[in-house]
Amino acid sequence: MEAYKKLIELSEELTLLGDTAALLGWDQETMMPAKGVEYRAKQMAYLSGKSHDLWTRAEVGDWIAQCEDDLSSHDEDEDRCANVRDWRFDYDRATALPRDLVVEFQETSALGKATWAEAREKSDFSIFAPHLEKLVELSKRQAECFGYEECAYDALLDGYERGARASELSKVFAALRPELVALGKEITDRGPRVAVDLLAGDYPIEKQQAFNQEVAQQIGFDFDAGRIDTAVHPFCSGVGPRDTRLTTRYDERDFTSSLFGVLHEAGHGMYDQGLPAEKHHLPVGRAISLGIHESQSRLWENHVGRSRGFWQYWLPKAAQYFPHLASVSLDDMVYAVNQSAPSLVRVEADEVTYDLHIMLRFEVEQAIFSGDLAVADIPAVWNERMLEMFGLQVPDDAQGCLQDIHWSMGMFGYFPTYSLGNLNASQLMESANKDCPELGGEIAKGDCSSLLSWMREKVHLQGSVFLPGELIERATGKATNSAAHLEHLRGRYLD
Amino acid sequence: MEAYKKLIELSEELTLLGDTAALLGWDQETMMPAKGVEYRAKQMAYLSGKSHDLWTRAEVGDWIAQCEDDLSSHDEDEDRCANVRDWRFDYDRATALPRDLVVEFQETSALGKATWAEAREKSDFSIFAPHLEKLVELSKRQAECFGYEECAYDALLDGYERGARASELSKVFAALRPELVALGKEITDRGPRVAVDLLAGDYPIEKQQAFNQEVAQQIGFDFDAGRIDTAVHPFCSGVGPRDTRLTTRYDERDFTSSLFGVLHEAGHGMYDQGLPAEKHHLPVGRAISLGIHESQSRLWENHVGRSRGFWQYWLPKAAQYFPHLASVSLDDMVYAVNQSAPSLVRVEADEVTYDLHIMLRFEVEQAIFSGDLAVADIPAVWNERMLEMFGLQVPDDAQGCLQDIHWSMGMFGYFPTYSLGNLNASQLMESANKDCPELGGEIAKGDCSSLLSWMREKVHLQGSVFLPGELIERATGKATNSAAHLEHLRGRYLD
Repeated sequence: MEAYKKLIELSEELTLLGDTAALLGWDQETMMPAKGVEYRAKQMAYLSGKSHDLWTRAEVGDWIAQCEDDLSSHDEDEDRCANVRDWRFDYDRATALPRDLVVEFQETSALGKATWAEAREKSDFSIFAPHLEKLVELSKRQAECFGYEECAYDALLDGYERGARASELSKVFAALRPELVALGKEITDRGPRVAVDLLAGDYPIEKQQAFNQEVAQQIGFDFDAGRIDTAVHPFCSGVGPRDTRLTTRYDERDFTSSLFGVLHEAGHGMYDQGLPAEKHHLPVGRAISLGIHESQSRLWENHVGRSRGFWQYWLPKAAQYFPHLASVSLDDMVYAVNQSAPSLVRVEADEVTYDLHIMLRFEVEQAIFSGDLAVADIPAVWNERMLEMFGLQVPDDAQGCLQDIHWSMGMFGYFPTYSLGNLNASQLMESANKDCPELGGEIAKGDCSSLLSWMREKVHLQGSVFLPGELIERATGKATNSAAHLEHLRGRYLD
Repeated sequence: MEAYKKLIELSEELTLLGDTAALLGWDQETMMPAKGVEYRAKQMAYLSGKSHDLWTRAEVGDWIAQCEDDLSSHDEDEDRCANVRDWRFDYDRATALPRDLVVEFQETSALGKATWAEAREKSDFSIFAPHLEKLVELSKRQAECFGYEECAYDALLDGYERGARASELSKVFAALRPELVALGKEITDRGPRVAVDLLAGDYPIEKQQAFNQEVAQQIGFDFDAGRIDTAVHPFCSGVGPRDTRLTTRYDERDFTSSLFGVLHEAGHGMYDQGLPAEKHHLPVGRAISLGIHESQSRLWENHVGRSRGFWQYWLPKAAQYFPHLASVSLDDMVYAVNQSAPSLVRVEADEVTYDLHIMLRFEVEQAIFSGDLAVADIPAVWNERMLEMFGLQVPDDAQGCLQDIHWSMGMFGYFPTYSLGNLNASQLMESANKDCPELGGEIAKGDCSSLLSWMREKVHLQGSVFLPGELIERATGKATNSAAHLEHLRGRYLD
């Protein structure tokens, strides 16, 4: 099988290039001095151009076709099937777009970012609207090139979450939305359980770093194969098979901000560290999707990090770093990190209201791409829905439909992966608890090893053998749905 | 001139690849978690292999030949002449070696490192000797491939210091050596001027970092185009035209260790930052040699950093960071950082004895490559010379001829660049003082801008227009010699 071998070799080369670009990217966000920015952009463009050129050669398409022809005789080899499946997908996506469309999209999104920043600064949607219209038009053209079965939006969605369909997401969201609205209302009506400033105090950054490091290490993040640094926008980046870099940011008046950041990114990071390292250079060795990645970050951030058991073990430890916490009761600590209230801005939203922000975005995106909504009408629709779902008046577009950068980069179909992550996290946690009834007790003793082992087996070590939908069905017995998540939220907020 | 344009394009691509490898290397020494090492080696090998393949194509040789033919009509264009000169040099060196020699050398030096470590650990030269013999033999074969006029050793020297010749170095060293021995003896006979533990105290690392940063910034290192981190073996790495990374290491009982490390590396760094950024992608935009690079590090470390004027300004500042220094007088501070005594180990040597270590190494290397000295006899010769020059008995080979790693990597001809750096530093400083008589007074007020401007003009901005010898002659009016250095040392140690 000469063609398969050639593709494996090429995969290895592209992985080396991709990981090198990932390190350049990590360095840019964490270490690079200001004046390095222009040259770094050149380096990144060079590396991605090289990769693109290597991958889009006509002979690569021939090799893939050859592999597909040969596949019937290897159809019991799951890894091979997944590799060929993903090579095909990546190759078709990379070669689908005519050069002028690629260039026009890059130029428009480069301009779009600056224009969006100005529009948000002035809270004036009309500044951004022409660029957004252009980006929508170009994205529609992209979708036509990629192809789809049901609707153009699916072609974009597919770029972030393989196999996801807007029609299915709509059903899941339709079930989730009224329940979340009702739950949110119930919580608001009941009023807060602890003082907003319960945890207020001085939290020196070095102490936060030491505490976060202790927590991350104990839940299972391997510091011999990773590290934590500081970044304006926290992220996790895998820069090699045994090298995963987390970042967080610090608020000297609130230690939970950096801690939950670390738990979130460590969730991503442990997924990365748990992927099959010997298959790192192959499609099957990769994380399968954003929605699965986010399930891991949300699981460690919310299901573990905001649980009573977690704080049973960690509150006394935290008080060793931050002595004034010694007077905080376990109940109050748990309440303090599980507060919910309607809010205007997604990135500040709590576990209950977060997905409502995503649904709003999803509805608007769908309406734009189906042609039901004109770009100019976005602010009106946005504000109307915010009132309906959150009971909030949007004071200005900066806090409304201009709040996120992603549209300005032409990222349509990306937001739903956050909610998929939340739903998947709850479903995985429910299954893990069923399989290992002792989980909760272990976490309350600071031992997360059973939970991590379960995730390693059911999710991490699977790599990309299965598409996200199938992975979740195999791990939890059900397609992604809202039941486990709603039960989790009710249990946490209403008990 | 199609060929010239093609070479410029290729140069740009190779520079992007080289800078990317430099960042991977910097990251490995400062940031990378332990388990990343294996994959990082793969990445580095991939990048250097790519560069080598791109550069050694036959058509590249044709382009260079074409440029050489065309050069007469452009011989007033200094940049073009230098580019073509260096392309020729680099191409001939890269294509001179047969593949089996390259592979054998790589394998032998890879083994040599481990064997050297074991030999040093056990202080048993016989363990290392067979590998050293092999490396010498392979290096001799390399030298024959590279070609030379006077002796094989010159071909190796040329790889580190363009245009340097053993015969000329021997003359310079012959004049320097007895003077240094005599000066060292005079200092030893006179006895120490201050207590050895004068500066002993607690120097918290964060305070050292803050102080070093203040010093580096004020002497002219641009932190918007660079940074300082911690590394086991301090170095400076330029990872882009406006991105220079320094490293140092800390001794919590001695703040001068990290400070002189930073001054040294900042000297390298300011040279890098002063190179013509718009020519960064061309040979002419590079630093010309190790001996010139080292002149800059030694100048800022020794001529500036150990001068009375420097401490006149910085001792009171240092006392703000480290209060117990308030009781140290300026005289005593200057004496404390300018102590000299014979020592066994080069990297711990002071300004007076340092070059004697280099000369010993240079003599031994020359004798090996001329065939006058057998590898097995190195320890005996080493120990004999140490007694002769330093009056020291070498207790074991670990502290003798096994002390340095470089031979185990097949680096022969590298050590002399350190002494060239010292001599060039003194010569450049003497000329700078002549051109700007106010220099000393400015430094005593914490202002190094005139000195830096002079170096920018005479050295940094020259890039690689002139080979090292010509650069020094143009800047100082004389070929590299020992006069200025001896005068500097006598002035500093005997006054």
